[in-house]
Amino acid sequence: MLVLSSPSGAGKTTIARELLARVPDLNMSVSATTRAPRPGEIDGQDYYFISDEKFNEMVENNEFLEHAMVFGNSYGTPSAPVFETLKQGKDVLFDVDWQGTQQLHGRAGDDVVRLFILPPSHDELEDRLRGRKLDSEEVISSRMAKAANEMAHYEEYDYIVINSKLEDSVQEVQMVLRAEHLRKSRRKGLYEFVRGLCDEENS
Amino acid sequence: MLVLSSPSGAGKTTIARELLARVPDLNMSVSATTRAPRPGEIDGQDYYFISDEKFNEMVENNEFLEHAMVFGNSYGTPSAPVFETLKQGKDVLFDVDWQGTQQLHGRAGDDVVRLFILPPSHDELEDRLRGRKLDSEEVISSRMAKAANEMAHYEEYDYIVINSKLEDSVQEVQMVLRAEHLRKSRRKGLYEFVRGLCDEENS
Repeated sequence: MLVLSSPSGAGKTTIARELLARVPDLNMSVSATTRAPRPGEIDGQDYYFISDEKFNEMVENNEFLEHAMVFGNSYGTPSAPVFETLKQGKDVLFDVDWQGTQQLHGRAGDDVVRLFILPPSHDELEDRLRGRKLDSEEVISSRMAKAANEMAHYEEYDYIVINSKLEDSVQEVQMVLRAEHLRKSRRKGLYEFVRGLCDEENS
Repeated sequence: MLVLSSPSGAGKTTIARELLARVPDLNMSVSATTRAPRPGEIDGQDYYFISDEKFNEMVENNEFLEHAMVFGNSYGTPSAPVFETLKQGKDVLFDVDWQGTQQLHGRAGDDVVRLFILPPSHDELEDRLRGRKLDSEEVISSRMAKAANEMAHYEEYDYIVINSKLEDSVQEVQMVLRAEHLRKSRRKGLYEFVRGLCDEENS
């Protein structure tokens, strides 16, 4: 389980898209939400669109790895499809904020690798948040404050990638993913493998 | 500080040589020993060749990161050159056994990344230990027992690389090295960097 978090404007969405295109055994986690689908959004692909009743029922049954309320709508990560994907030996990518990361880590512990993406500089971040140059200074300031609030939680993550160049950043995240697979704790059947090497059954 | 351990016959020496050739900022740690230099061995490059008196003095002054006695000779890793290399922003590679790894980890904690290299199979290991085919079965058995004793400690390591193909294994160790550099705990000046991103001084 690989979690990517970042302030908006740091390039996380582009990095995630590139990762999913390059790593065959990496699946994006699909969230459930109570908000209405927007034009073009596909149920089960962009989100699982569910009713408030269903959402509350799932919360009560502890069926979410993490969930939160944003602008009056509920969002959550259903645990069943995540565990199903993991059981197939695949990795799951999560795009959640620091609060979602805390909940995920609380539920799944060391199975979760937490990676935080930072923008290369303050000016670059402001440029990206300025967007179409039509927004007022107040809107920009509010976006910067929100970004700062998210960045204040970088210490709760295992890895930090500073997104100066997209290609470098994608490769860095891939390296983290591959190195984490080499961790002793993620190696399946290692005990039996080493026993076989030592030829314990014949000694 | 990257520690490579393995039973003999797993290909560690070849992997280490390749790593040092490919990674410019990686230096091999040089051990001190009380044994006499063999023909061709260079002081300060293969080993620091020192007297028993000097060795004992260094032990008493706590100047070794790890040390041990093997076949009546003393071997140890002097800490000063290691810390000097680290201060230059370079990494240091150690080729030590499980006991040396325990001592290193005890002294340097999370600054040490521990990687264990396993052979791909029991038969492959036996083939490699059989060497020039001139050794008796007893000698082979004794080497296998020694290898098994070393492998029994794989659980004390952070990463496991199974050396099926040299090229894959070298790349895997390189990935671990690069990913570990992205760890939050190894990132220098991150707090100030994030403060700068948040533009705290102007707010």
